[in-house]
Amino acid sequence: MSTQESGPIEGFWTVIPAGGSGTRLWPLSRSGSPKFLHDLTGSGWSLLQGTVDRLAPLSEDRLLIATGLRHAPEVRQQLPDLGIDALLVEPSPRESMPAIGLAAAILEQKDHDAVVGSFAADHVIRDDELFRRSVREAVAVARTGRLVTIGIEPTGPATGFGYIKLGDPLAVDGAPHARGVESFVEKPDAATARSYLDSGQYRWNAGMFVFRATVLLDMLDHYQPGLASDLRSIANNPLRLTELWPRLREISIDKALAEPAAVDGRVAVIPGEFDWDDVGDFDSLGALLADSEDGVKVLGNAADVVAEDTSGVIAPRSGRVVVTLGVRDIIVVDTPDALLVTTRARAQDVKSVVERLKSGGRAELT
Amino acid sequence: MSTQESGPIEGFWTVIPAGGSGTRLWPLSRSGSPKFLHDLTGSGWSLLQGTVDRLAPLSEDRLLIATGLRHAPEVRQQLPDLGIDALLVEPSPRESMPAIGLAAAILEQKDHDAVVGSFAADHVIRDDELFRRSVREAVAVARTGRLVTIGIEPTGPATGFGYIKLGDPLAVDGAPHARGVESFVEKPDAATARSYLDSGQYRWNAGMFVFRATVLLDMLDHYQPGLASDLRSIANNPLRLTELWPRLREISIDKALAEPAAVDGRVAVIPGEFDWDDVGDFDSLGALLADSEDGVKVLGNAADVVAEDTSGVIAPRSGRVVVTLGVRDIIVVDTPDALLVTTRARAQDVKSVVERLKSGGRAELT
Repeated sequence: MSTQESGPIEGFWTVIPAGGSGTRLWPLSRSGSPKFLHDLTGSGWSLLQGTVDRLAPLSEDRLLIATGLRHAPEVRQQLPDLGIDALLVEPSPRESMPAIGLAAAILEQKDHDAVVGSFAADHVIRDDELFRRSVREAVAVARTGRLVTIGIEPTGPATGFGYIKLGDPLAVDGAPHARGVESFVEKPDAATARSYLDSGQYRWNAGMFVFRATVLLDMLDHYQPGLASDLRSIANNPLRLTELWPRLREISIDKALAEPAAVDGRVAVIPGEFDWDDVGDFDSLGALLADSEDGVKVLGNAADVVAEDTSGVIAPRSGRVVVTLGVRDIIVVDTPDALLVTTRARAQDVKSVVERLKSGGRAELT
Repeated sequence: MSTQESGPIEGFWTVIPAGGSGTRLWPLSRSGSPKFLHDLTGSGWSLLQGTVDRLAPLSEDRLLIATGLRHAPEVRQQLPDLGIDALLVEPSPRESMPAIGLAAAILEQKDHDAVVGSFAADHVIRDDELFRRSVREAVAVARTGRLVTIGIEPTGPATGFGYIKLGDPLAVDGAPHARGVESFVEKPDAATARSYLDSGQYRWNAGMFVFRATVLLDMLDHYQPGLASDLRSIANNPLRLTELWPRLREISIDKALAEPAAVDGRVAVIPGEFDWDDVGDFDSLGALLADSEDGVKVLGNAADVVAEDTSGVIAPRSGRVVVTLGVRDIIVVDTPDALLVTTRARAQDVKSVVERLKSGGRAELT
């Protein structure tokens, strides 16, 4: 099958695991209203809606979304056109492998040749066209029976991401950039991250995987036999979901599959050339926003902000006016029931404050 | 008449001009709800109530409060025991001289020997007993026919206050600390303020004046003849208040009376030994508040604040939880319709932001 340069990809399905609470974006993101449900870039669309829109030109209505019980109503509300059987509701959190594996098991039943791309619901990509070009290449490689990931070009020596070590170029029709994967490596320390960056031989692991459904399940059957069998049982008899789900191993696709399969030379990577951001905290969010007239980044209605001698990120989300004076690299997130004031340098520590709220009897705010 | 060491002072009246919006304490203090109506120290009482309580042991129910039309209802509400004729409502703002002068004119009619002490409604004093001792001395001197002020011992080279230059000691029974006043001087620059402090010969002018009602009006008749005559006309025929008030000169008691009378050697000063603060901005407010467990100053319910690696002043006044992380000398004032984030160093510039709100179509918030 040849690879087209544009238009939908025949037999290609998008799977979107929509999970993760985005604790470091509190109080915007809450456990009951996580990051993927929010418009964090001022685009007018939530990150989930943006992800769906980004993939639709490739997979049309071949879409499955896996999300938690608690978020299903809001997902339905945000995606009114979502098919009746396009929402997999997980009875309890089990990390990414059970969700993606169940989607694959369901799709393998529908279409033995189905190629699946799995993409997180809460990442920001602006170069949609470049992104889709990488997905097209990944699909071409996936059809050859490999587990394919898309690797993000590092923009700095980040210690918050896992890395993918590039292997040799692959000769696959329609995938000129395809490489083997030598290994997946865990989040490095700063010095190691710097050496990865300098070598040019590493990409960030953004959890993007493209594979034939049957290939994924057969691989899983090799590395996690019980899990694959349970997932296929559920796909055969969906009524068994609530019975079998609690005993599924809680494990990520990286640990369950990608790491061991890479060791066995069964993983390929398309090094992406598009921009990418996981909007991990308010500091990275700030980098995605344009400056207002006052020189601050406003996530919300700029008319609600009066900022003098201020730099940083201001999210006026309560309808109140937010006035800042003489504060640098500040982060102010104003919501109807909670206010956060911190700095861009401390943005990643918001998580610890949220833990403190939880343990301090304020769990209803988290 | 001898001066008692305790108990009420016969014929002594307290006048409290309750005005000024306290713009630098926005958004706590508003033009519609100025500083003196607020509990700014967590005492449970507004600054106005604190002022009334501080003077009551000396003047009992001999009390007149002068305030603006807009604030009269709230003043009545805060002071339910205030006598029916104890509230002078100014038809429009005219600075301090007309208000204090009218109080004097009214009291001179009631009691030719009345001694009046005029004290701003929005200052904080904790050493009430030491303060009252100074007032007792001031009353003793006032009975000799002088205009008497109480001078605050400077605690630093402040450039935000006017200063009083001490003259020679006076020999007045019951007023061992009394001195003449050589002059009143305007707010100095930093170097001048430093030289004032070092000389030990200057006191801050906190606008506290004690005088016989007739003496004040006779002096005023000398320095501002039209004004004194109008005020006495109003006192004789209170129905003329609304007619005459608009033409009264808008002038402070310092400019109208104290400065020229000092030149003529008619002013005395009691150098006070009590603490004093005009709570001019959130920085000085911070100095009045104790540290919370988290090491911040909380004006409000400390349970509403979660502060990590934070120093500064936090006023949670909207019922929401306020979370701060890694911000130093920060000021966060959270009210139901407006939020301010600034630093202690910029506290005095809050005024300029309020001006910007006013001119920017947000006057309803100021």
